[in-house]
Amino acid sequence: MQTKILLDEEQIPKQWYNVQADLPSPLDPPLNPRTQKPIVPEDLSAIFPMELIRQEVTTDRYVDIPEEVRDVFRLWRPTPLYRAHRLEKFLKTPAKIYYKWEGVSPAGSHKVNTAVPQAYYNMKAGVERIASETGAGQWGSSIAFATMLYDMDCTIYMVRSSYEQKPYRKSMMRVWGAECIPSPSTRTESGRTVLKKDPDTPGSLGIAISEAVEDAVNHEKTNYALGSVLNHVCLHQTVIGLECREQLAMVDDYPDVVIGCVGGGTNFAGISFPFAGDKLTGKHPDIDIIGVEPASCPTLTRGLYTYDLADEAGYTPLLKMFTLGHDFVPPSMHAGGLRYHGDSPIVSRLVHDGVMRAVAYHQSEVFDAAQTFARTEGIIVAPETSHAVKGAIDEALKCRQTGESKTILFNCSGHGNFDMSAYDAYSAGTLVDYEYPDALIKEALDRIPKIA
Amino acid sequence: MQTKILLDEEQIPKQWYNVQADLPSPLDPPLNPRTQKPIVPEDLSAIFPMELIRQEVTTDRYVDIPEEVRDVFRLWRPTPLYRAHRLEKFLKTPAKIYYKWEGVSPAGSHKVNTAVPQAYYNMKAGVERIASETGAGQWGSSIAFATMLYDMDCTIYMVRSSYEQKPYRKSMMRVWGAECIPSPSTRTESGRTVLKKDPDTPGSLGIAISEAVEDAVNHEKTNYALGSVLNHVCLHQTVIGLECREQLAMVDDYPDVVIGCVGGGTNFAGISFPFAGDKLTGKHPDIDIIGVEPASCPTLTRGLYTYDLADEAGYTPLLKMFTLGHDFVPPSMHAGGLRYHGDSPIVSRLVHDGVMRAVAYHQSEVFDAAQTFARTEGIIVAPETSHAVKGAIDEALKCRQTGESKTILFNCSGHGNFDMSAYDAYSAGTLVDYEYPDALIKEALDRIPKIA
Repeated sequence: MQTKILLDEEQIPKQWYNVQADLPSPLDPPLNPRTQKPIVPEDLSAIFPMELIRQEVTTDRYVDIPEEVRDVFRLWRPTPLYRAHRLEKFLKTPAKIYYKWEGVSPAGSHKVNTAVPQAYYNMKAGVERIASETGAGQWGSSIAFATMLYDMDCTIYMVRSSYEQKPYRKSMMRVWGAECIPSPSTRTESGRTVLKKDPDTPGSLGIAISEAVEDAVNHEKTNYALGSVLNHVCLHQTVIGLECREQLAMVDDYPDVVIGCVGGGTNFAGISFPFAGDKLTGKHPDIDIIGVEPASCPTLTRGLYTYDLADEAGYTPLLKMFTLGHDFVPPSMHAGGLRYHGDSPIVSRLVHDGVMRAVAYHQSEVFDAAQTFARTEGIIVAPETSHAVKGAIDEALKCRQTGESKTILFNCSGHGNFDMSAYDAYSAGTLVDYEYPDALIKEALDRIPKIA
Repeated sequence: MQTKILLDEEQIPKQWYNVQADLPSPLDPPLNPRTQKPIVPEDLSAIFPMELIRQEVTTDRYVDIPEEVRDVFRLWRPTPLYRAHRLEKFLKTPAKIYYKWEGVSPAGSHKVNTAVPQAYYNMKAGVERIASETGAGQWGSSIAFATMLYDMDCTIYMVRSSYEQKPYRKSMMRVWGAECIPSPSTRTESGRTVLKKDPDTPGSLGIAISEAVEDAVNHEKTNYALGSVLNHVCLHQTVIGLECREQLAMVDDYPDVVIGCVGGGTNFAGISFPFAGDKLTGKHPDIDIIGVEPASCPTLTRGLYTYDLADEAGYTPLLKMFTLGHDFVPPSMHAGGLRYHGDSPIVSRLVHDGVMRAVAYHQSEVFDAAQTFARTEGIIVAPETSHAVKGAIDEALKCRQTGESKTILFNCSGHGNFDMSAYDAYSAGTLVDYEYPDALIKEALDRIPKIA
């Protein structure tokens, strides 16, 4: 039975798909936090190259992928699409489960799909150094790899709790020539401020973003790069879903359900936006698109859909998104890449409009799912990815109940080779499931700045 | 420029190639250590299933791969063959460099290629538990994965120096349901004996083999499995070279040089035996086949070609091979999988006969090569694999000198995701290069038992 559905390198997409073109009305624009007026490209030009700013706002349906970027993609793309025969058999489900395996990339996850074009456009614009942040380290190692390709320097602010849990992500960044420091750090004003208030803070993505932006603003020929959340990052990740659609067509299939885990939302965007476009344009109106988030950072399921800052210190524009409040510090947990207070504005809009929906799970149940996946399909996934695995297993089990033979597609976004301490905690029974009282969530939401 | 040469799952080889069929004269047989007479199948039946014993001695040119085993292979095979465009450009070489990427397997290396059929044949023979050993942990995690597929129990004796350097390999074995204990252990007579002599020993593969064999002999329905050295292990690994030959034919190429790293010798055997067969049968008489070993365990380059034990305690047959003496304990170094006192009898014979040759490198220079590879091709290889990378780079640099456009093929046998502490030591400048005085080697060789 065919297990892997493969494409040739010539079939690496030549264009990214931009779901903004198919939204029934435009996205609410990012606002300047000082003036509360929509930002203009110049507001962003201190930290982003003009081509990425253009991609952030364009409503063109397709954006060309530079040949030089496609040439780098050949190192791992197109990635294989797997039919999960062994998992299906184990679950005794009539559903067909497919997963897109992004763990074959150099840094081991989908993050490289946007790191390479981001580094490329910065290089083209004469930028010589990138400052960025990372949660679990997948983005940090990806941007380290990408900047190395173009002979650029790179500094990564890594969320402290992950820095301590995953020391070898730092080693990987070093092999590729980047510098990696725990955040909050004493290098930046925003880092020092947080440390003063709480020297033992586990850190957060919001804090690390503030540090990286501050670094970029204050250094010559240095730009900032973000591995998630923004529209251009979603755009770059659509290679995942575009390939999936081709691969499923090769076996005469099309998904009834599309699933991804959600931190900032871009791996989910990557696999789902081409299908969301099919839904928005009426080609496949019934497709069910599910984002899976951690119950310990439940932005889409318990957050507010409103304008909020993307970082802790307030250096970034206000984005219209689901948020728990920009100063919300999620507990230290193993899916560090999902510890973000907000979400991609496009994903948020689509969830708000009912084009997509969201579910939340606790870490002990997602690790149950991850172990089942490892013991059937052989792949040990990242803690972030295990959320998508759990979502897919639950949908497949529903099919066992109903007898439906649905086609379920999920994004297997990265391997867990640097996350084995999380599996150790799981097998030792020491994983903690955080449940937020409503009052605590409300308090965080009340701190979101009010827009006039 | 095409980077990856891919095959369909239908092109997973249907038969293994057995180079024994093309040797000009038979291999010297394994001897019973007590009688010094050739062993008979019954001598091995206490620890191996009959089908593997048959494969150990057969001179059939091809051996069928069971369909059930090919079905498991679909999870990662055929593996991609890469053209190393970026490395070639960096080296300014006219050579063409290809590498076979075995790191895409569940456990991250070629070892799974033999773990699966070994577990399969044991399951078929009614065996319910496997005892085995592991050096760096690649074999241990592979046999853990394979035994899990067939619902068997598994105990792994892991060489202590690697157990401490690579704690997450143990976590991986646990995810797949196996038990992993540091060797020498107090579980076995052979382990206790070594610990009594030297409580601080780093352990060795020879000691760990003794423990696993002793465990298998002393437990019901338990067999032993070896991840290297033996003829049937070489046989199983030939899927690598067979696929390479097909993949190179797709781009109208054939190697002038074939390279692999050598510990027990089976990943090298896997990539090279199909080409060695072409050489032995006169189809390609000039192909250069190079095994690369660590200078700190220089079996092929400084050992003796003679009968010796495969393990420390003397539980195994005497094998005719290159050896440094069965009680030789190599220093603790990062390429734990290459810390073996002997070599595959077939590889040894082919090196002895001049069909293949061997070179040795120090660990600091192989890590230089590994870093170059990571910074060009993006892949962070295992310390073992870095020896093959170094060999390929050196051959490519010779081509730059001579202007020859040779086709160089090497086995990129595994990823280094669990070996980042070695890269940390490299970048900290703390790697130690061991150079053995001739006297010390001679002393170890003098302890090899004399055959009448």
